[in-house]
Amino acid sequence: MTTEFPKDDFFAYVDANMRTYISELSEAVAIQSVSSDPEKRGEILQMIHYAEAKIKALKYNTSCKLYPNPVKQDPELPPILLAEFGFDPAKKTLCVYGHLDVQPAALEDGWDSAPFELTEKDGKLFGRGSSDDKGPALSWLWVIKAYEDLGIELPVNIKIMYEGMEEFGSTGLFEAVQILSKNGEFLSDVDFFCISDNYWLGKKKPCLTYGLRGLASFEVAVQCSTQDLHSGIFGGTIHEGMTDLVHLMSSLVEPGTGKILVDGVYDDVLEMTEDESKLYTNIEFDVEEYKKESGVAGVSNGLLRKDKEELLMARWRYPTLSLHGIEGAFSGSGAKTVIPSRVSGKFSLRLVPDQDPEKISKLVEKHLNDKFAELKSPNQMEVKFHGGAKAWLSDPKHPNYASGTRAIKEVFGMEPDFTREGGSIPLAGWIEDATQMNVLLLPIGACDDMAHSQNEKYNISNMNCGVKVLGLYINELGKVEGPKPSSCRCIPLTEAELMIPGAFIRGFKCKCEM
Amino acid sequence: MTTEFPKDDFFAYVDANMRTYISELSEAVAIQSVSSDPEKRGEILQMIHYAEAKIKALKYNTSCKLYPNPVKQDPELPPILLAEFGFDPAKKTLCVYGHLDVQPAALEDGWDSAPFELTEKDGKLFGRGSSDDKGPALSWLWVIKAYEDLGIELPVNIKIMYEGMEEFGSTGLFEAVQILSKNGEFLSDVDFFCISDNYWLGKKKPCLTYGLRGLASFEVAVQCSTQDLHSGIFGGTIHEGMTDLVHLMSSLVEPGTGKILVDGVYDDVLEMTEDESKLYTNIEFDVEEYKKESGVAGVSNGLLRKDKEELLMARWRYPTLSLHGIEGAFSGSGAKTVIPSRVSGKFSLRLVPDQDPEKISKLVEKHLNDKFAELKSPNQMEVKFHGGAKAWLSDPKHPNYASGTRAIKEVFGMEPDFTREGGSIPLAGWIEDATQMNVLLLPIGACDDMAHSQNEKYNISNMNCGVKVLGLYINELGKVEGPKPSSCRCIPLTEAELMIPGAFIRGFKCKCEM
Repeated sequence: MTTEFPKDDFFAYVDANMRTYISELSEAVAIQSVSSDPEKRGEILQMIHYAEAKIKALKYNTSCKLYPNPVKQDPELPPILLAEFGFDPAKKTLCVYGHLDVQPAALEDGWDSAPFELTEKDGKLFGRGSSDDKGPALSWLWVIKAYEDLGIELPVNIKIMYEGMEEFGSTGLFEAVQILSKNGEFLSDVDFFCISDNYWLGKKKPCLTYGLRGLASFEVAVQCSTQDLHSGIFGGTIHEGMTDLVHLMSSLVEPGTGKILVDGVYDDVLEMTEDESKLYTNIEFDVEEYKKESGVAGVSNGLLRKDKEELLMARWRYPTLSLHGIEGAFSGSGAKTVIPSRVSGKFSLRLVPDQDPEKISKLVEKHLNDKFAELKSPNQMEVKFHGGAKAWLSDPKHPNYASGTRAIKEVFGMEPDFTREGGSIPLAGWIEDATQMNVLLLPIGACDDMAHSQNEKYNISNMNCGVKVLGLYINELGKVEGPKPSSCRCIPLTEAELMIPGAFIRGFKCKCEM
Repeated sequence: MTTEFPKDDFFAYVDANMRTYISELSEAVAIQSVSSDPEKRGEILQMIHYAEAKIKALKYNTSCKLYPNPVKQDPELPPILLAEFGFDPAKKTLCVYGHLDVQPAALEDGWDSAPFELTEKDGKLFGRGSSDDKGPALSWLWVIKAYEDLGIELPVNIKIMYEGMEEFGSTGLFEAVQILSKNGEFLSDVDFFCISDNYWLGKKKPCLTYGLRGLASFEVAVQCSTQDLHSGIFGGTIHEGMTDLVHLMSSLVEPGTGKILVDGVYDDVLEMTEDESKLYTNIEFDVEEYKKESGVAGVSNGLLRKDKEELLMARWRYPTLSLHGIEGAFSGSGAKTVIPSRVSGKFSLRLVPDQDPEKISKLVEKHLNDKFAELKSPNQMEVKFHGGAKAWLSDPKHPNYASGTRAIKEVFGMEPDFTREGGSIPLAGWIEDATQMNVLLLPIGACDDMAHSQNEKYNISNMNCGVKVLGLYINELGKVEGPKPSSCRCIPLTEAELMIPGAFIRGFKCKCEM
């Protein structure tokens, strides 16, 4: 089993099969599996059956089933597709995740070509889902087919988990992960987990992603009256709710610095380690490009952070607080001389390790209660915590990451950047919390693939290199020695805790942190 | 002409004709003259023709014409109805104003009876426009008819000006007033002006209204980017516009006191005179009732002002600043983790004599520019002044008010309260500025008539007393001796100034203040 991997043959095979891959991606893109539209549940099911047929056609496939979505809704939620390739106890087991549903898209939104017809132009494949996530998801099947056709034994057992509701909040996936992580279930014997559903930091250099920020979402409401009032008649006589609210909102974050003004909010932010600090310096990142991408270039050209390192740290490893808006106030164009009766400010924090959403919610509530007391207002004030998710931070020195790194080096001739992201993919945390597996985020797409936007595309070169990287990655995983190499900082929640709906996202602490 | 007025006969006549008045009001309410709906222009015209026919049927009528609306729009705006009763140069001339259009209404909005069918119940006449303003407007015609039927000569020449766009901003009326005030035109020889289109302060005691607040409307916009951004990806790296905006908005007004924090804003507020101070103490006003009416009772029960006097002064003679809302931010229910690219805070000030909207706008702009500089933000900030109107303050010692007072005393056996209002009726200022006439606001309706709301009503007792008061009022005016008793603090704008559209409402100063 430790014979030399025939890299040249494998690369040649991938190059020779590019037209097949494009043709298959074209078939997949044509299925309008839009998960935000309940009318399209049939299309999602069609896409799942399409992938199921592809899997069953593979010789190495040993099991394939549709796992009913544990959450019951009308119309019915699509099942989760679970497949296995091999169950050799002598081998390590990799589980890969992908999603088969897509964001909505319509030509009228400003696409240059029909979004559900894969359109090739200048080395790019335009189409909804081409990069997010049908291309990367199908790549795993192309890798297995290549191994089969080249007569190479799979170096690891492979499990596939494809879902169909990712773009609408992965409904049912959290619950499924809890059940499937129990002893003897699908995820219980997995050694490594890999998700290919995010993006490179730039257009040219590949990366591996080891961290995501968490989230804590809030609203603070102030009510001054039971009805909206005329500002001419009542102005000057009542404690207007908006006056209180803008003071409360302005007490949360400091202009000019972005510093969060809630006492204690930075207490649990991890200290910078020497190892981590080095990571930022070496990362390839173009600040000027970032200004353009964010649209700041067209306005002020001024960022909150002075250089690349500060900027990346602010996005990845420090918490932030954003004010999103106000519900209940006048929000139209023009003027309306109203005193709104009840106004509710919406804001959220992006959390980082080891911040706990529940603890943060208590700090925020205390802060707002203290500030409101200072206002000496008789109005009713209410803080609502809408829940959140803990940040996810993996160990980039784990063998899973080392395997990905070696694969990338073989294909691209360069080390990947080790990145974190400012957004949140709750699945990574769910998996690590529930199974103790290490999760690797291994993106294939480039930063300009326009996922969720008009003219989504997948570069043919990324597709080609992506299949090669995944093929080498599983070969590298097969070389990992020793026992099950868990590095997760968490242990599973108890059965009783698992029964609480949304236990994790409500901010339950991991056992190992207690 | 100075023979004793046959008060008893007049009162008996009015009492005997109540069924006729109710029947006529019923006909008027049935015409759905809703001015905010361009589809209903025909109904407004029908209502104007209805009033025109009533006027022409009066023996004392000497002229009646439809004055084309000077503002051209499609669909065409309704004309202004101008009528004269007598033109004896030996008599003083009174001009009265009323409006024949109404607010929208539908049974589905929560009315207890069909809004366009006048419905009598417990001494109240329910129907849209019953109190605002068809009842009061038609009362002038009932008074003239009573004089005719009783064989009493009119003590003053009477001019009537009825418009049909009041509830949609009196489109064209400002322009018409400018033209009609010129030498030889309809308004040029008027001695007194009377508007009956506001409300008593309470339910039982009549009042005369001698002041209204003005308005200055603003928005302050902050732009941080050319597009909305994802708070996970961009949070912590850019100067978020919302952070700047809530700081700017919170710098405008002090919570707990309602004090406006813009430097210089109180400089031109008139000093309290001894005479004025006495007015507040004597006014009948129920603070507890006000808490209920405002809906504050259902929430905090706390008002900004400690007693009746402070409360009335805050509503009438001090400026206030209200924050209305934010355009461009997230305003829906639930959560959206967006960093809005351009947010615009809406607010307005209610102005009092002698505050000038243009001067206020400069103070507000300077304040916001100074505060924004303190934020050290690279974002783009813009303050927009949406114009406004000066406050209107008449002289409650003018013979016009004295006449109204005597009439009320005869009918109700008590002195009226002298009130001001927090809202704005620009016509009062337009008239005084353009003609130097004194304007009296003589309300007939009670504070709970629900103008603009569901179940608008007109008390039969108010209708009865209203006709009596108006009848005695013109008799009292006829006794006023001496030359044209102008007490207006203003002189007309020049012809050139009048050519500037909206000259007055843009805050042009009156000549007498220069």
